[in-house]
Amino acid sequence: MMTSTSNKKILTRDNMNPRILKAEYAVRGELAIRSEQIKTELAQGATFPFKKVVACNIGNPQALNQKPVTFFRQVASLVEYPDLLKDENAELTSKLYPSDAITRAKLLLKNIGSVGAYSHSQGIPLIRENVAKFISERDGYPSDPSKIFLTQGASAGVQLTLQMIVENSKVGIMIPIPQYPLYTATLAVLDAHPVPYYLDESKGWGLTTHELQRSYDEAAKNGIDTRALVIINPGNPTGQCLTESNMREIIEFAKKNRIILLADEVYQTNIYQPEERPFHSFKKVLKSMGPDYEGFEMISFHSISKGMIGECGRRGGYFECEGLDKSILEQIYKISSISLCPNVQGQIMVDLMVNPPKKGDPSYDQYQQEYDAIYKSLIKRALILEKTFNALEGCTCNSADGAMYLFPQIRLPRKAIEAAHAAKRTPDEFYCMAMLEATGVCVVAGSGFGQVDGTAHFRSTFLPQPELFDEFCSGIKAFHANFMDKYRD
Amino acid sequence: MMTSTSNKKILTRDNMNPRILKAEYAVRGELAIRSEQIKTELAQGATFPFKKVVACNIGNPQALNQKPVTFFRQVASLVEYPDLLKDENAELTSKLYPSDAITRAKLLLKNIGSVGAYSHSQGIPLIRENVAKFISERDGYPSDPSKIFLTQGASAGVQLTLQMIVENSKVGIMIPIPQYPLYTATLAVLDAHPVPYYLDESKGWGLTTHELQRSYDEAAKNGIDTRALVIINPGNPTGQCLTESNMREIIEFAKKNRIILLADEVYQTNIYQPEERPFHSFKKVLKSMGPDYEGFEMISFHSISKGMIGECGRRGGYFECEGLDKSILEQIYKISSISLCPNVQGQIMVDLMVNPPKKGDPSYDQYQQEYDAIYKSLIKRALILEKTFNALEGCTCNSADGAMYLFPQIRLPRKAIEAAHAAKRTPDEFYCMAMLEATGVCVVAGSGFGQVDGTAHFRSTFLPQPELFDEFCSGIKAFHANFMDKYRD
Repeated sequence: MMTSTSNKKILTRDNMNPRILKAEYAVRGELAIRSEQIKTELAQGATFPFKKVVACNIGNPQALNQKPVTFFRQVASLVEYPDLLKDENAELTSKLYPSDAITRAKLLLKNIGSVGAYSHSQGIPLIRENVAKFISERDGYPSDPSKIFLTQGASAGVQLTLQMIVENSKVGIMIPIPQYPLYTATLAVLDAHPVPYYLDESKGWGLTTHELQRSYDEAAKNGIDTRALVIINPGNPTGQCLTESNMREIIEFAKKNRIILLADEVYQTNIYQPEERPFHSFKKVLKSMGPDYEGFEMISFHSISKGMIGECGRRGGYFECEGLDKSILEQIYKISSISLCPNVQGQIMVDLMVNPPKKGDPSYDQYQQEYDAIYKSLIKRALILEKTFNALEGCTCNSADGAMYLFPQIRLPRKAIEAAHAAKRTPDEFYCMAMLEATGVCVVAGSGFGQVDGTAHFRSTFLPQPELFDEFCSGIKAFHANFMDKYRD
Repeated sequence: MMTSTSNKKILTRDNMNPRILKAEYAVRGELAIRSEQIKTELAQGATFPFKKVVACNIGNPQALNQKPVTFFRQVASLVEYPDLLKDENAELTSKLYPSDAITRAKLLLKNIGSVGAYSHSQGIPLIRENVAKFISERDGYPSDPSKIFLTQGASAGVQLTLQMIVENSKVGIMIPIPQYPLYTATLAVLDAHPVPYYLDESKGWGLTTHELQRSYDEAAKNGIDTRALVIINPGNPTGQCLTESNMREIIEFAKKNRIILLADEVYQTNIYQPEERPFHSFKKVLKSMGPDYEGFEMISFHSISKGMIGECGRRGGYFECEGLDKSILEQIYKISSISLCPNVQGQIMVDLMVNPPKKGDPSYDQYQQEYDAIYKSLIKRALILEKTFNALEGCTCNSADGAMYLFPQIRLPRKAIEAAHAAKRTPDEFYCMAMLEATGVCVVAGSGFGQVDGTAHFRSTFLPQPELFDEFCSGIKAFHANFMDKYRD
């Protein structure tokens, strides 16, 4: 019965969606896959020069034992099991849960019904109202719940809005280089053009509108119809935080060239030089620019995955639409409704993020303590790792104003570059793979984010646990020295 | 500063992604939006001929007060707040949670770490192993965890796999008519052709391979390159359940025509005539067909949203790949990794679904009782509603072998059809909108699923609460009689 043709698979790399084939996502690419293998082999008793894989490839704080915020988890636990809130269990429950967690859980359930029911596709109305309150308190300008969409993480929001904007394969979207590879991957899937603008490493990964204009004009010359500008602030992988005047220029640039601004602000609370480089939202800066900028079209993204919360496995976030046409909001609603709704526990965590315990609440002190401890520890670890990188031979590293990453440049010896080519890897991938095999530390090669041709970088989180941090840094130091010696010209 | 051009919005319906504009999803379309408005107006004190909106447009059991399975929620509650599992809380916790829920929560946390951490992009390995065990016990044939992908609901899995398969705009995907509109919406977004095959209403929504071949051949004649066949079993919106011999024919058809089978089996436990029409999985039927069918390419979908669980707001599910090329599995992994991971609480619910309490476990009796009560009540409500529909003037309704819906045909008077045209609605939409305004019952018009030209249907769940069911049915009866009288020829 079987012919030789029917032995061939129906679905192959040759006839699948070529746009998916083209998409790359280095954060969970070859290095991450190899690190998973090593983890399995270690568990099976294999010997490596280290005892543990340290996943610095991804901002995944709780995987590196960051303790979740207690109050948030108490509320999440109560809404899962409403029997705890019944009168007959009140006494026991009150011994395990603080009263404000109980009050919040009751309020949420009153609004939601059940965390197991589909919600409004745009997100639970009460939670969108709380998000709007949060934004207006943060910025000092009003925010409208009907223009807020809850999502399964910022990534889902970015994918959805890019999908809305990309009309055809001539469309271009401006993205920073280096960038978070969600953007290039999504644009590949949508068959749209990334229009790269370069951040200036020599100026702390600074961004100039001169470079934005160059990028835009060059794309236009190539027939690309640029429709939107992605700004990641604080930067990922670069950690820089924009000044207010720089942001005004960016908004002016977008207005002049009639492009939509997409503001990825998921690291807005990961700010490590709050005096010199505070976070300003694009919404606030835009609103401060007065009536000339009324109707300016912008979408801002936020997430529960980062900050001091780090609830990334839960998949929750939101985006706020500013100035978009009503008919476009309707289309966003429609496309959201096809996926029914963001998961409700993710929505609840958004509520907790934007509306944490207030002064005087029973849980306030503990919340503030936990929050501050994580925050201070992140600042400390960022500084130690930066110092470590800058002390490495041939390595320079800008400091992190914000986010969770450092993105050092490494200058590799000619012999290392040749060895990389022989191994059919880029030099930075070669270096990172060597680091993984020697230390168990998994980082992401700079080529996964984009970098100036001929340079080599890598991205590392500074999330390993404080008590293991010295060991982690000295492991990298020793590896680097050995690597440089091995390939010294 | 502002010119008249710059007053025009940058992003409009005219220049947005036209594929999104084209997509339709009636389940949350105009009727559902109107029902939300009415809900708000009712809450604000407006008067309608009813006191409550009843959402029968969507299979959302917990929104209609179906109680969640207690054991599942106990485990979900414990993993949210691991402090409950500490020794110092053991005594209190054991008064609120049964010992098997505590044991399960500990096991899950040992494997997962934290529900707030990103997991493996394909899904937590332990949970995929449990899914594979469940499948092999269900079918009597082995299942491989490396070919299972956990998802944020079956919808996300369907979207992902269709996206993989659609190479270009000549590609066609066979879908039933009537169908669940996720399929047409996703194909519209992907710019692929729906290749419709018709279910035979006069034969209990039966499916013949003769009709499949007709559909395939007609598409081929039109230059459409058909790559996959979607079967929804049990059917949505139609509720029919396929016989084993029918399924063998379908597999033969797919093999002969070299197309991939996509088996949407999310209603596999919603089986209401288990003696006459038991559920068979396509995996089992395929495996029973012997070595000639080795390597047959198929993807099967399952979900936590339906069955007796109804945890749809949580967004969890899985798909199993059968016979797919290894390189395709790698691509599915890659595209999954761009969205990082399915939400972890959704994954945990998959674990609970496939591995519920066993005989002898402390929670077994309660679990079985809750499960059976929901099951029996669904059968009962399906029968009452079917009888109600069949008693309506000009209405006929097939019985539901499975799923959560009935899809009656309504034969409307000429004057009603004219009134519909005058209102710029299809006759079925006109009828459904009238039902909503008169009774507060929100159903979905048949045109949202597809139907034979010139016929009119609607889809209604039979999920309203048992104690309200009589009122719900008599409301529909009274409305229908009035409607027919009003438009009688």
